Amino acid sequence: MRTVNIILKKRDGDILTKEEIAFIVNGYVDGVVPEYQVSAWLMAVFLKGMTPEETVFLTETMLDSGTRVNLDGIPGPFIDKHSTGGVGDKTSLVIAPLLASVGIRVPMTSGRALGHTGGTLDKLESIPGYRTNLSLAEFRRGLAEEGFAMTGQSKDIAPADKLLYALRDVTATVESIPLITASILSKKAAEGADALVFDVKYGSGAFMKEKSQASALAHSLTSVGTALGMKIAALLTDMDEPLGNAVGNFLEVEEALDCLEGNGPADVMEVSLALAANACVLGGKASDVEEGLALCKKALESGLPRKLFLDNATRQGGDVKRLLEMRGNYRSQYAYDLKAERSAYIARIDAYKVGLASVYLGVGRNRVKDAVSPVAGVLLRKKREDWADAGETVMTVYAKDANSLREAMPLLKDAVSYGETKPSRKPLIG
Amino acid sequence: MRTVNIILKKRDGDILTKEEIAFIVNGYVDGVVPEYQVSAWLMAVFLKGMTPEETVFLTETMLDSGTRVNLDGIPGPFIDKHSTGGVGDKTSLVIAPLLASVGIRVPMTSGRALGHTGGTLDKLESIPGYRTNLSLAEFRRGLAEEGFAMTGQSKDIAPADKLLYALRDVTATVESIPLITASILSKKAAEGADALVFDVKYGSGAFMKEKSQASALAHSLTSVGTALGMKIAALLTDMDEPLGNAVGNFLEVEEALDCLEGNGPADVMEVSLALAANACVLGGKASDVEEGLALCKKALESGLPRKLFLDNATRQGGDVKRLLEMRGNYRSQYAYDLKAERSAYIARIDAYKVGLASVYLGVGRNRVKDAVSPVAGVLLRKKREDWADAGETVMTVYAKDANSLREAMPLLKDAVSYGETKPSRKPLIG
Repeated sequence: MRTVNIILKKRDGDILTKEEIAFIVNGYVDGVVPEYQVSAWLMAVFLKGMTPEETVFLTETMLDSGTRVNLDGIPGPFIDKHSTGGVGDKTSLVIAPLLASVGIRVPMTSGRALGHTGGTLDKLESIPGYRTNLSLAEFRRGLAEEGFAMTGQSKDIAPADKLLYALRDVTATVESIPLITASILSKKAAEGADALVFDVKYGSGAFMKEKSQASALAHSLTSVGTALGMKIAALLTDMDEPLGNAVGNFLEVEEALDCLEGNGPADVMEVSLALAANACVLGGKASDVEEGLALCKKALESGLPRKLFLDNATRQGGDVKRLLEMRGNYRSQYAYDLKAERSAYIARIDAYKVGLASVYLGVGRNRVKDAVSPVAGVLLRKKREDWADAGETVMTVYAKDANSLREAMPLLKDAVSYGETKPSRKPLIG
Repeated sequence: MRTVNIILKKRDGDILTKEEIAFIVNGYVDGVVPEYQVSAWLMAVFLKGMTPEETVFLTETMLDSGTRVNLDGIPGPFIDKHSTGGVGDKTSLVIAPLLASVGIRVPMTSGRALGHTGGTLDKLESIPGYRTNLSLAEFRRGLAEEGFAMTGQSKDIAPADKLLYALRDVTATVESIPLITASILSKKAAEGADALVFDVKYGSGAFMKEKSQASALAHSLTSVGTALGMKIAALLTDMDEPLGNAVGNFLEVEEALDCLEGNGPADVMEVSLALAANACVLGGKASDVEEGLALCKKALESGLPRKLFLDNATRQGGDVKRLLEMRGNYRSQYAYDLKAERSAYIARIDAYKVGLASVYLGVGRNRVKDAVSPVAGVLLRKKREDWADAGETVMTVYAKDANSLREAMPLLKDAVSYGETKPSRKPLIG
């Protein structure tokens, strides 16, 4: 088998065998196939695509390049939720304890903020003392006791994905449905979940700007995940406007707590409940989504999810007493109220621009090694469809320092559109 | 300017600016843009193409990466001929002295045998003592005196092409019309010719198997070459059967001498004269191809081209006395007559298979550093359309050693097809 022939085959739009895919991917991991051949192959895959079967092969090869989390001895079902990334998306913090409260174990492995999107690990770490670098024993303990645990990805999971992702990033081969599918599923399959609920977002603040792209990714994740033996549900959700009112690290922990206490914003609740209800169906806790929704609402009313959230925080080193004391007042001193330019309806708050501005503010980062601020962020006082009188506060902005605030404000101002008429309602899901 | 954005632009089928093309190519030559980005870009170019204008920019960038041969002080016109490579193609050896004899200077820069195709330098070096590694002064002297000189390519010519070609070879991005065009023209433009005659071959023994591909390349070479300020003629010629009767190094020198003496095979004469006649038109020596043909035929009858060939051989170190003595008897002892399997017409002699077999025999090479044999080769006693009685010799085969002969024979046997009816005549040109 020669690498150049495998590249040529994909270049000409032919279908690769499992052996050919493994030859390239494993060869790359082993340092036998050079980067310049892998990147030519990636571009050919990007432009010529892969069949679902090829994508399964690629996913399996990447999965087999690393270890799998051992959850033996802990009773299931194990279900993880994965979002393709958005702005203000704190649903993981709501869904994990919620599902745990109905008997579904959530081995949740999350990422950090990167680019304009937020990261669950950064949010959790804004709780004083909270650790996300769990050992396997700690992760298993949390899963066994609270029914969920929140951790970052181990270095031993799908090392082929790490290498390929880094190469895709610098060769303009990121936005490929089969490559994205294999990247996500190889990691998720290694983490021990037997079912997955996907939140595939579309709109300005999402990775996929078009709903048709998001739909294609959802289909690909579902068919390839199913072929790998997992139960899959995938929802399409709108990410044109930030989800909820809070964008930030500690700000979003607060809003998640609001949700767990029954006082969360309607959109965050709608998405969280829909994802959780689907997980209940996959996990055999409900016979259909409707029943799942009822089960989750009842669980929230019981207060158990909130208790489990705080128990988890304590277990992972968080100071819950301080968390509750800080709630509502842990804010940066570099604050600014953005006022409505005129009396009008809010026609749009562009999630992408808010997300980009958040990087300046200190919520997110441009490079993986940058630090983030717990107290930076944006609190939206108005959202799409709301009326704002001229001079009324549209959002309160918190920055890590004065300079960042100055840099972010023009973008945030630009993120808000006004209109004379109330914009029509857009469905959030589907 | 960021490399990844340039890759992305081409990936999406957009048109690159001269600056963007130069950024990638010069960055690669300078070691700033890594191979893995260049190869992803090459695959995007392969699959999305380039406009003629982009191809001009790419050619200019590659041309400017090196030096140009200085022919100042020698009167022109300077015309070179370039073939896309074939089997048994010794037309360069005929055309160079022929054009010189009518007052066109030919600064001929040639290559070596590689893969199944032969190389002019290897053929010339089968003449005892003949050197092809000329200094610029030697090259200029030959051009000034005989009107032509035969040399290999200087390392200072288009170094970007050498780097890109090596990368294309291992990333399945060779067979791209714009990349081939830029590779050929950047080198030819650097060699000082003000007009070029291209022999773009199609068929099994050619690089381009389909006539439509060859035609696309001919058009690209013509439009890009013209945009670069050169006069261009491009002929399409059939390379399904070896050209002439001789395939080999010294064997082809002999056949070229036959042509210069008026005794060459009809097909070699037809292609050589057509190319030379077009050069006469480009060089202002004839008003049309017909007139060019008449001029060339007359020149051949004068004997001057043969004299110039031998004068050039002497100038470049060749022992002409020995060349003429060896003629007709400088043959390998490892010889074999392939006989006709049955009484039938020869329906086809597959140039590709003869070319591949020649590599075993020692005519060509698989790696640039392999040595070639002067005395190996194939003498075709029958060609397409000929009748062969069962047991009659179809070809005489000469190998560098006994083992090579054994390896090559099955391929050569397989190269010959027989038929009950005489195959219809195929046009050789156009």
